[in-house]
Amino acid sequence: MQVRKAVITAAGRGSADFPAWTSAHQAMLPMVDRDGLVKPVVQIIAEEALDSGIEEICLVTAPGDEAVYRSHFQTLARRLATGGEGKATQEQQRRLADFERRLSFAVQDKPEGYGHAVWCAREFVGGEPFLLLVSDHLYVSGEARRCARQVIDLAVAQDCAVAAVQATREHLIHQYGTVAGKRVSGLSNTFQIEHILEKPTPTAAEQLLHVPGLRVGHYLCFFGIHVLTPTIFSILDEHVERSRRQGEEIQLTPALQELARSEKYLAVQTNGRRYNIGVKFGSLEAQIALAMAGRDRDELLIRLMELLLQAGVRNDE
Amino acid sequence: MQVRKAVITAAGRGSADFPAWTSAHQAMLPMVDRDGLVKPVVQIIAEEALDSGIEEICLVTAPGDEAVYRSHFQTLARRLATGGEGKATQEQQRRLADFERRLSFAVQDKPEGYGHAVWCAREFVGGEPFLLLVSDHLYVSGEARRCARQVIDLAVAQDCAVAAVQATREHLIHQYGTVAGKRVSGLSNTFQIEHILEKPTPTAAEQLLHVPGLRVGHYLCFFGIHVLTPTIFSILDEHVERSRRQGEEIQLTPALQELARSEKYLAVQTNGRRYNIGVKFGSLEAQIALAMAGRDRDELLIRLMELLLQAGVRNDE
Repeated sequence: MQVRKAVITAAGRGSADFPAWTSAHQAMLPMVDRDGLVKPVVQIIAEEALDSGIEEICLVTAPGDEAVYRSHFQTLARRLATGGEGKATQEQQRRLADFERRLSFAVQDKPEGYGHAVWCAREFVGGEPFLLLVSDHLYVSGEARRCARQVIDLAVAQDCAVAAVQATREHLIHQYGTVAGKRVSGLSNTFQIEHILEKPTPTAAEQLLHVPGLRVGHYLCFFGIHVLTPTIFSILDEHVERSRRQGEEIQLTPALQELARSEKYLAVQTNGRRYNIGVKFGSLEAQIALAMAGRDRDELLIRLMELLLQAGVRNDE
Repeated sequence: MQVRKAVITAAGRGSADFPAWTSAHQAMLPMVDRDGLVKPVVQIIAEEALDSGIEEICLVTAPGDEAVYRSHFQTLARRLATGGEGKATQEQQRRLADFERRLSFAVQDKPEGYGHAVWCAREFVGGEPFLLLVSDHLYVSGEARRCARQVIDLAVAQDCAVAAVQATREHLIHQYGTVAGKRVSGLSNTFQIEHILEKPTPTAAEQLLHVPGLRVGHYLCFFGIHVLTPTIFSILDEHVERSRRQGEEIQLTPALQELARSEKYLAVQTNGRRYNIGVKFGSLEAQIALAMAGRDRDELLIRLMELLLQAGVRNDE
């Protein structure tokens, strides 16, 4: 198996915490990356994939968003090219151009659910295994390999679909897809997926999702990174048809459950952390985590300490 | 003197640090305010004015931006009204509606400088004294009164124009308008403005801008808050005409210099801090400062400490 393509879903229409702020707005949020360069969030997510060996990226967006993105990238490229006070580096230009060259779009014409958003990328994927990311999560790896690379490496070595998971405390599992399965002997932190429940209650988790060897009160929750085989689209074809007939949302988790029944599907505890920028203080936490893992670490630490000191009253710069 | 009106300039076309990110984008950045509510940055700035007794606000924007703002506020209001997971509070609705009701727009049709942006609000101001704010600065007061309120209170009491200033270390003064003047007896931290230099060198400052009684190596720099009398528009009328003839940018500082020569113009050291969201890590710092000054203080402190601890490697939620 080779994993050359990535799908990033970015078709949300505003979040609970900031309803008027759509995925397109959020994707353009400027953020300082590990390398000290200011980038739109969507480029930071895309670089998770590109730095993991991905060659082509498809962004699934709401109708009309491609023009918004393209125009934003053009403006950014033009301003970087003309330089100005920002000392826009050649590195920034090179990376933006590389990202744009590898980027294509798929439109989700109606918000019919997350499974539907993934399904909208089926033509782009075209029968290959692919990496799946979401547009509102940023990752900081705990090792030299990117988080996405860790998942891809296992998928390639085992020639199968792989979901990144993370041991998560019971009181948080209602936010995530949660899996259970047997440990795979000979592979550390790797599980053969047997059950998947979307946002389970603690009671349901206790009955169905216990995984031996995890810390007490912890379960394996999705981390937002998957390598999927094209089988997922045959499954989604049916789910889309059935859900539309029944007027229901097309979710991804039921399709993943079916995938686990029909072929080898592993889960791996990823060495790294995820930051959800779509929640209150989420982009703040993501920004601090990125900066603390990168070249601005010392500068940011000093600024944070100053800010905390200033939280008292000082009338002086 | 009564100060009922505020002008907020928001017509910038991208900053050095993030060139494609215009003032309109930046103004819509969602941020958690002191009261724990998520608001667009522009509303947080407007509330600096509204909480200081201002009744009407004029936003000076680039052409076409009013529609962007209005549509954003409409979407936000609609989503708040329909509720949803965000538990959007009635307080959030009430404040957004109040802000919108008091808001009007003035268009700066070409970017001819900051003085020109202010001049574009002359019809809105209509011969009254007014509060002037910029759209990329947020303030945290060191006392019960807002920073803008401190400036307005002095302007009303002294019946004259007032500039907020802050004692600033020499190595930072190249970023600011810097003033010098005599202390006003009987008023603490208050100066009669005699000189103003825009972004002076340390040498020029040492020669012209020394103010007795400040800490060594400190100067009085503009803080981004002014109360101005309508005299400023008669001055700007001339400056606009002359600058256009000479093909120069229309800056505000020369007009303020002229104001200081023609009428009583005080500077007051404001009790509070400013946060510039337009620079690298600026919105991060502003967000932390707001949260640390408000109801999310304890929650944020815990999250910050966790983030700093996690800056090592831990694969566990």
